[in-house]
Amino acid sequence: MWLYNAPPRQLLRERYGFAPDDAWLDHVRQSSVRFNSGGSGSFVSKDGLIVTNHHVGAGDLQKLSGEGRDYVMNGFHARTREEEKRCIDLELNVLTSMEDVTERVNAAIAPSMSAQDAFAARRAVMAQIEKVSLDATGLRSDIITLFGGGAYHLYRYKRYTDVRLVFAPEQQAAFFGGDPDNFEYPRYDLDICLFRAYENGAPAHITDWLKWSASGVSENELVFVSGHPGHTSRQLAMGELEYLRDEAFPFALAGLYRKEVALMAWSGRSDENARRARESLFGVQNGRKARGGMLAGLLEPALMASTREAENRLRDAISKSAELKDAAAAWDRIDAAQKIVAPDARASAMLEQARGFDSTLFHIARTLLRASEEQAKPSGDRLREYRDSNRESLELGLFSEEPIYDDFEIFKLEGSLTWLVEILGAENPVVKAVLVGLSPRERAAGLVAGTKLKDVGVRRSLYLKPVGSLAESLDPMLLLAQTIDPESRRLRKIGEAQDEVKRQAYAKIAEARFKLEGGRSYPDATFTLRLAFGAVRGYEEQGRPVPFQTQLRGLYARSESHQGKPPFDLPPRWVAAKEKLDLSTPLNFVSTADIIGGNSGSPVLNRAGEFVGIIFDGNIESCVLDFLYTDRKARAVSVNAQAIVEALRKVYDAGALADEIEGVQRR
Amino acid sequence: MWLYNAPPRQLLRERYGFAPDDAWLDHVRQSSVRFNSGGSGSFVSKDGLIVTNHHVGAGDLQKLSGEGRDYVMNGFHARTREEEKRCIDLELNVLTSMEDVTERVNAAIAPSMSAQDAFAARRAVMAQIEKVSLDATGLRSDIITLFGGGAYHLYRYKRYTDVRLVFAPEQQAAFFGGDPDNFEYPRYDLDICLFRAYENGAPAHITDWLKWSASGVSENELVFVSGHPGHTSRQLAMGELEYLRDEAFPFALAGLYRKEVALMAWSGRSDENARRARESLFGVQNGRKARGGMLAGLLEPALMASTREAENRLRDAISKSAELKDAAAAWDRIDAAQKIVAPDARASAMLEQARGFDSTLFHIARTLLRASEEQAKPSGDRLREYRDSNRESLELGLFSEEPIYDDFEIFKLEGSLTWLVEILGAENPVVKAVLVGLSPRERAAGLVAGTKLKDVGVRRSLYLKPVGSLAESLDPMLLLAQTIDPESRRLRKIGEAQDEVKRQAYAKIAEARFKLEGGRSYPDATFTLRLAFGAVRGYEEQGRPVPFQTQLRGLYARSESHQGKPPFDLPPRWVAAKEKLDLSTPLNFVSTADIIGGNSGSPVLNRAGEFVGIIFDGNIESCVLDFLYTDRKARAVSVNAQAIVEALRKVYDAGALADEIEGVQRR
Repeated sequence: MWLYNAPPRQLLRERYGFAPDDAWLDHVRQSSVRFNSGGSGSFVSKDGLIVTNHHVGAGDLQKLSGEGRDYVMNGFHARTREEEKRCIDLELNVLTSMEDVTERVNAAIAPSMSAQDAFAARRAVMAQIEKVSLDATGLRSDIITLFGGGAYHLYRYKRYTDVRLVFAPEQQAAFFGGDPDNFEYPRYDLDICLFRAYENGAPAHITDWLKWSASGVSENELVFVSGHPGHTSRQLAMGELEYLRDEAFPFALAGLYRKEVALMAWSGRSDENARRARESLFGVQNGRKARGGMLAGLLEPALMASTREAENRLRDAISKSAELKDAAAAWDRIDAAQKIVAPDARASAMLEQARGFDSTLFHIARTLLRASEEQAKPSGDRLREYRDSNRESLELGLFSEEPIYDDFEIFKLEGSLTWLVEILGAENPVVKAVLVGLSPRERAAGLVAGTKLKDVGVRRSLYLKPVGSLAESLDPMLLLAQTIDPESRRLRKIGEAQDEVKRQAYAKIAEARFKLEGGRSYPDATFTLRLAFGAVRGYEEQGRPVPFQTQLRGLYARSESHQGKPPFDLPPRWVAAKEKLDLSTPLNFVSTADIIGGNSGSPVLNRAGEFVGIIFDGNIESCVLDFLYTDRKARAVSVNAQAIVEALRKVYDAGALADEIEGVQRR
Repeated sequence: MWLYNAPPRQLLRERYGFAPDDAWLDHVRQSSVRFNSGGSGSFVSKDGLIVTNHHVGAGDLQKLSGEGRDYVMNGFHARTREEEKRCIDLELNVLTSMEDVTERVNAAIAPSMSAQDAFAARRAVMAQIEKVSLDATGLRSDIITLFGGGAYHLYRYKRYTDVRLVFAPEQQAAFFGGDPDNFEYPRYDLDICLFRAYENGAPAHITDWLKWSASGVSENELVFVSGHPGHTSRQLAMGELEYLRDEAFPFALAGLYRKEVALMAWSGRSDENARRARESLFGVQNGRKARGGMLAGLLEPALMASTREAENRLRDAISKSAELKDAAAAWDRIDAAQKIVAPDARASAMLEQARGFDSTLFHIARTLLRASEEQAKPSGDRLREYRDSNRESLELGLFSEEPIYDDFEIFKLEGSLTWLVEILGAENPVVKAVLVGLSPRERAAGLVAGTKLKDVGVRRSLYLKPVGSLAESLDPMLLLAQTIDPESRRLRKIGEAQDEVKRQAYAKIAEARFKLEGGRSYPDATFTLRLAFGAVRGYEEQGRPVPFQTQLRGLYARSESHQGKPPFDLPPRWVAAKEKLDLSTPLNFVSTADIIGGNSGSPVLNRAGEFVGIIFDGNIESCVLDFLYTDRKARAVSVNAQAIVEALRKVYDAGALADEIEGVQRR
């Protein structure tokens, strides 16, 4: 998960006798696309065609669907540019430059400052640097905190907000094998989705896009992955890892379990319910399996022991160096900060992270409320998501025409209000203020029935109005957001101050690590562009070899071995196309590339920088990559490039798209 | 939920102008059957034929199934007596007599005794009374604690342990609509299962069995329900109710959510996995929906307010009476006792209730270990389930030939060990001793691979052997049971002492209530025989009337409205039989009868004592009956007697069974 401005050239040369040059890196970086909804993708034609995963595009497919029109389940195919459907609130980012601003950020912090003042000063200077950059370049400008506070880089992005849906297969082709096969291998999935970036109402003219490989991958071949890993915890102090194991993961899983059960039950009641909940259910199941795998990793004593050993080695080295003595106390400071936030962590999850208010309408209400409140302050004093440089992205979401269903809103809100009561207690004053003497069921129904925020026009009319006039609207969802906001903000403030303490401590550790390890390292993932690499390679499971690649024939065989029953059923188009297909076409392959959630949709490239596949999953053993890289059994799972064009041409009658991807000149 | 020896004759006469006489009660009582696996049933022929629910018999169907033979899913039909299949470990009980032994039990307790001594003395006198009764009568003899300690009755039961499976429909007919329709109404389910009691290798000769009604039920008709409600909390102090709301139910639900998700995922992997997990999954989903409904009830402020008001009225009346002043402090004593047990409640659930050890093999190991330990003590000093009078029942379970699957055991054990770590913490000494430095996955696999207890012969050879020789067996599951036993027993002891404190306090409250209310009351449910009554009656939901009865045609209509997709698919036999059936046959009906879990399979009777239906569910509004009886929306759901014989004759070609049930003389 290397930074593009600090690529592991030496390591690659040592291990593979090859290292990408600057032109290679610049080209791949500018071909890489971040899906702000949480995923990765890449340009694959000069006309702005983008390939990502079906499960990355699923949120947009869901928003474009409606009763009787289920693009998630049934897929979509625009046969002409005119049929391409504009996504409702999708923002894509392409990283155009990176700049190290560590010194400028740290210069704003005096050693004598309290944690809270230091946090405020840091937030202010970051907002100011971003604003200056935005004004100067017109580009989205985000400062990224790396090494937990060891470095600050200013990333500038080209934004695309007119993004159109071009093609999606049926979910059953993209996610064949469903939850049972998710995070497993061998796999047989066509987890892809095509979008097109537009500018000024026409397809964007792209200068950097990836050439499609005609040759596929071979075992042990070096491959690269260019994408946006969301989050890793590899440099966490042991105390924080133990906290994840003992509290954070079990709590998160408890929330996912209850939501999965509720969504399954709700979906079971009707096809339309199932359609409305489809993407949420996938997300919850996927999250549950990933976190379950991570927790299982943390419960592997060998893993914890090796992590503890590494930490001890580092602490030992630090304690022996006079130059590094500043870092020696960092771990105690992290533990102390964690002890301060831990007692409020659940309350903070319920209120500030809004786990107790699982409702799109509530999120809209809170955004409106806080936008008004924060607008009155200088940009640098605001909650970070309300800073000037984030305004366009914030508005894109706030004014989204995403369909909102009353029954689904009530259902989700009742469940989450119930959880709120369970976690904070029925006698908690905030809970009492939230429920106003009603049961979660009645309260949820009343809130959804009473709010006007489903209407985007109403949202626009309230946006940035003085807080007093929001209250005058008497919109019950806005009033609810207002009710919990003082406590919610109080909890956030505690957390942010201690995060600053941790940031300073991790910065010390990172500095010491730089000095000891000579910079041969990369920061934890931050949902920003990184370059990973690895070898295409099978593995062993229970003594049996798992081959590196599957073929199209395996898809049919696996479906037959389950008598075609869900989730191993084949979409009708696939049944019909069997005879036409070259069944020896490679379908999915595994590699030792270092990936994590957020990498979904990342292009896999060969040395020539050609597109050979697309990341869509990791095996269950890969969940541990959150804490530790290992290539023993952990594998990234990709769709082969060849399977994509074979399916486009022969299953979906989408030859024009295959031509565009393969660079075949259109007639 | 009235006691058979204190029937509500006056109330019935006032409300319905009818009260059953002693002969009526004796006949119905002796026709009623308790399924010790957790349910109710009744005799419906002189040859020992018993009707219960499919979901009550499902455990036995599961145990009789095997790879490629799935009686739960596909049903079963013995066309001759010879084909009837003996259940593996099913025990049925028929209540033959009741005797009030309150004075004898209380005489053993001196007011000066500590809670712990009082508990031991009470346990000893109860075991002694039971043993004397067992020796004198040969009948299973259980002392039942009523009114939370206000009364003790000695119940004697005839036991049947040679019980044979006669008939079961497909689960999809019994549980049509699956989880989405469970606890809902209208319903369309044939949730029945037929067994036959045998004695000395031949069908039992039964003197009391229920006559089948030819006429069905009509709206507002008085009906009776004779069955074994498992547990209610209607006389709980408010403090205990709040504890249920704030801690016990959320914790139980968290366990059910995680288990449901895990079972769904495991079942998805193969048909055989699904078969092995079928009954567990049903039980977990059913429990989740029931407890979710109960928690929703506790979160209804109106319900809590009315309960609090009732308690305040009672406390007020007590405080005004010099005679009752003993009872005034009872609530504080209950709260104090609850405060003592609460901090250990989760640990006790994980260890003593073995939630952390979800494995049949673990239960066997613990039973073997404790049987040996307890055998060395006088019966009255033993843990209650090891008393002499329970020995036969205990052995029936311990030496059960129920199939045990290594992979399913490992799966369940891994999941529950993970939960154990989450709840008690990785650094807890008991947890560390349990895991011996391994991950839950590795430990579960090692335990299941290493134990020999799957072999019933091994169990027999170890049964009642000195504890030392159990340890010498080095069986890892036995050693595990031994590892946790000291802490587990310590937690149980704390709980039992405080239960005694509560028992004495509730006894005072019950006494006061008797005096104030003149005995027009019934105790909380205790999985013992009770008589309930109510009227056949529809209700209103969201302003629309819900009719009291459905018909067979509704089953087909509901399936069609869901395009026959699971869980609304019809078994092939039902599709084929449609033309033959009288589609106007009543299928399910609702009544205001007072039921709760454990009543499943209870016969529903008309004034003449005839079988008009069988309880199989309550609507979601009925879950609140755990805390409070209401007939506003809460309804018991039954299968109509007519649907049973119509289906037996025309869907299942089981005319002989229909004849036997209807009392038609065989040719």
